Amino acid sequence: MPIITLTTDFGNKDHSVGAVKGAIYKELDQATIVDISHEISPFHIVEAAYIIKNGYKNFPEGTIHIIGVDSELTPENNHIALKLDNHYFICANNGIMSLIAAEIIPEKIVQINIHDKVESNFTLLDVFVKAAAHIARGGTLDVIGKDITAIKQLIGVKPQVNSDKKQIIGYVLYVDHYGNVVTNISRTFFEDVGKGRTFTISTRSVQFKKIHESYSDAINFDSPKNKREEEGKKIALFNSAGYIELAVYKSNPSTVGSAASLFGLKYLDTVNITFD
Amino acid sequence: MPIITLTTDFGNKDHSVGAVKGAIYKELDQATIVDISHEISPFHIVEAAYIIKNGYKNFPEGTIHIIGVDSELTPENNHIALKLDNHYFICANNGIMSLIAAEIIPEKIVQINIHDKVESNFTLLDVFVKAAAHIARGGTLDVIGKDITAIKQLIGVKPQVNSDKKQIIGYVLYVDHYGNVVTNISRTFFEDVGKGRTFTISTRSVQFKKIHESYSDAINFDSPKNKREEEGKKIALFNSAGYIELAVYKSNPSTVGSAASLFGLKYLDTVNITFD
Amino acid sequence: MPIITLTTDFGNKDHSVGAVKGAIYKELDQATIVDISHEISPFHIVEAAYIIKNGYKNFPEGTIHIIGVDSELTPENNHIALKLDNHYFICANNGIMSLIAAEIIPEKIVQINIHDKVESNFTLLDVFVKAAAHIARGGTLDVIGKDITAIKQLIGVKPQVNSDKKQIIGYVLYVDHYGNVVTNISRTFFEDVGKGRTFTISTRSVQFKKIHESYSDAINFDSPKNKREEEGKKIALFNSAGYIELAVYKSNPSTVGSAASLFGLKYLDTVNITFD
Repeated sequence: MPIITLTTDFGNKDHSVGAVKGAIYKELDQATIVDISHEISPFHIVEAAYIIKNGYKNFPEGTIHIIGVDSELTPENNHIALKLDNHYFICANNGIMSLIAAEIIPEKIVQINIHDKVESNFTLLDVFVKAAAHIARGGTLDVIGKDITAIKQLIGVKPQVNSDKKQIIGYVLYVDHYGNVVTNISRTFFEDVGKGRTFTISTRSVQFKKIHESYSDAINFDSPKNKREEEGKKIALFNSAGYIELAVYKSNPSTVGSAASLFGLKYLDTVNITFD
Repeated sequence: MPIITLTTDFGNKDHSVGAVKGAIYKELDQATIVDISHEISPFHIVEAAYIIKNGYKNFPEGTIHIIGVDSELTPENNHIALKLDNHYFICANNGIMSLIAAEIIPEKIVQINIHDKVESNFTLLDVFVKAAAHIARGGTLDVIGKDITAIKQLIGVKPQVNSDKKQIIGYVLYVDHYGNVVTNISRTFFEDVGKGRTFTISTRSVQFKKIHESYSDAINFDSPKNKREEEGKKIALFNSAGYIELAVYKSNPSTVGSAASLFGLKYLDTVNITFD
Repeated sequence: MPIITLTTDFGNKDHSVGAVKGAIYKELDQATIVDISHEISPFHIVEAAYIIKNGYKNFPEGTIHIIGVDSELTPENNHIALKLDNHYFICANNGIMSLIAAEIIPEKIVQINIHDKVESNFTLLDVFVKAAAHIARGGTLDVIGKDITAIKQLIGVKPQVNSDKKQIIGYVLYVDHYGNVVTNISRTFFEDVGKGRTFTISTRSVQFKKIHESYSDAINFDSPKNKREEEGKKIALFNSAGYIELAVYKSNPSTVGSAASLFGLKYLDTVNITFD
């Protein structure tokens, strides 16, 4: 039976996550449920999109991903189910899926229409649970919704290039658990625009002229330990999600400080790259 | 095999939750363990009672709920196991179960008496784990305890009505993950007292004259988006747990602010309803 | 199939933990994965060592423990797998295992050498996942690494005794979820040095002359409830992990205050015991 993952902004204190899991086990007593995150900032679609984009592909094909962020059904916020990259996604049509669907064409998208068949008495996610159980049992998307061809787009998520192709204007997409700052500039985008030119990454307070391949790639292990800059070193790197990240080596927000605090950067702050 | 749920104030950093799970797997290698919450405020029985009351009923019948809040065995704090609403609960007799048992008569209550048979070397919950494993294997409550008929009551959890039935005096029972404020006034209680009269809900700094059925019920979707009050709108509603909740639509504590911060309300603060 | 546990400093917000679990399920679709903690302070080896030491032994023999703290492979930080106390551990050779291996001789230690066979594209832990899957399938450590005999030691974790054996100089090893302060002085060490002498435990601001066996052991239940010191009482006890802990009875950091805040103690602060 396929795995069901959960990504929500419910937090881990309230009974909400437990309630959803209980409801899934009522439908599927052999379910395997995996939490991706319940600490998405409330109603933060961009954050949820970044996390689900990078989380889903580590799971086996056929996995069903329930996303409970800004998911209340309203006249302007319908519910969708998608098959994409051989994974299933169930969420509100609020833009969350556009970040993934921009790069990989969905095989099928339906607008869920089983709301009148579901007794709704526990959470916002009762319909999502029923839809996931249906898919887990091998059911098709056609049974739970009607085909649609387009989904709502997240606006302004992509970095811009100026007209002479000498500058990329990006921004801070996500600040991670270590306080490292993930930009919206992907390796592919950077390499396509840069074509190997030298460059300077600039933020409000810090500049970088090199992008490393990993955190430790920034450390010169040939140099004696006491002479080498290490903890607290400021670096840019391509992170495991494929984005340019501005980081502090072995950053601990409560001791050496984090990239976000040291660089003074938060969500949506500008990050520019100028090519020579 | 029945699911075992965990609700504790252990937090998610220490090894305590992992230790309990390991101990359960030692007893039952095929166990299905589900976290309801480990972020109950320390020793906060009212909070735990609210969460377990709303969490348990989403699980399949026969589920065994372990509650590890204020559970150390003392001469004044014995351990109990209950069968109630076709679910099992294992906890300290400290009042936690009274909120549920007030509305639904327990089928059976025992005071656990297997403490001298259990080698206690890992956590406060070793006896609870043994009791849960016994029940999960199909054992009866009689084997692990002696029948009792009454459990300790939580005092003062219910809202009061004044003598002329024109006012309900309630208080803040719980502040949820979004900072929304849950009162101790249930829909049933409100409707029984109010009998359809118009009313005003008053707190220190804010008043409401309408109780919505859902968050989005408060939004007029016929009005153009740019003319409509939406994010940050202050509303009262019946939440999915059946209580009157004072909320901020799409509240994000770090941007538009939360109901708790905007209304200046915290646990036990007074919420009054005056009927006309 | 053996359980796989996870102990990391990844936090619960990012997609990292979900990504590791997805990768495990790709290898082992019937895996049982249990979180011990993902809230280790970033790169905090001592904290991780304390938690894994106290967490692991509650699990069934044969359990495989993945530790993802300071685990990036560098010329100075290789990867190891150990069999010890009939449990398996997979981690970086950064000192984490020395706290356990000091007390229990590992049956086998290998330095993992399968890095060139693993396509590394999701997290720091891809090699750990492959190693765990190999062990879970019944494979031997010899296939994934080469024998080594020594592991890196954590320096300075043990308490000191002065020359006339009249004083133990220890420090704060861990502050737990309730704000209670765990010292690095074990019961065994204390009893070996003290040999039954009376003593005084001293910190910056507080002294203790008795060590209790449990939290409630400090309360005199024969005394009437309203005359008895209870909530907020300052106590020393041997905690369930076998260390001397300085605690506040039923401490709630947000109401009565925690031991750490009331005593003004944090990680590495000195705790002395003077014998008479």
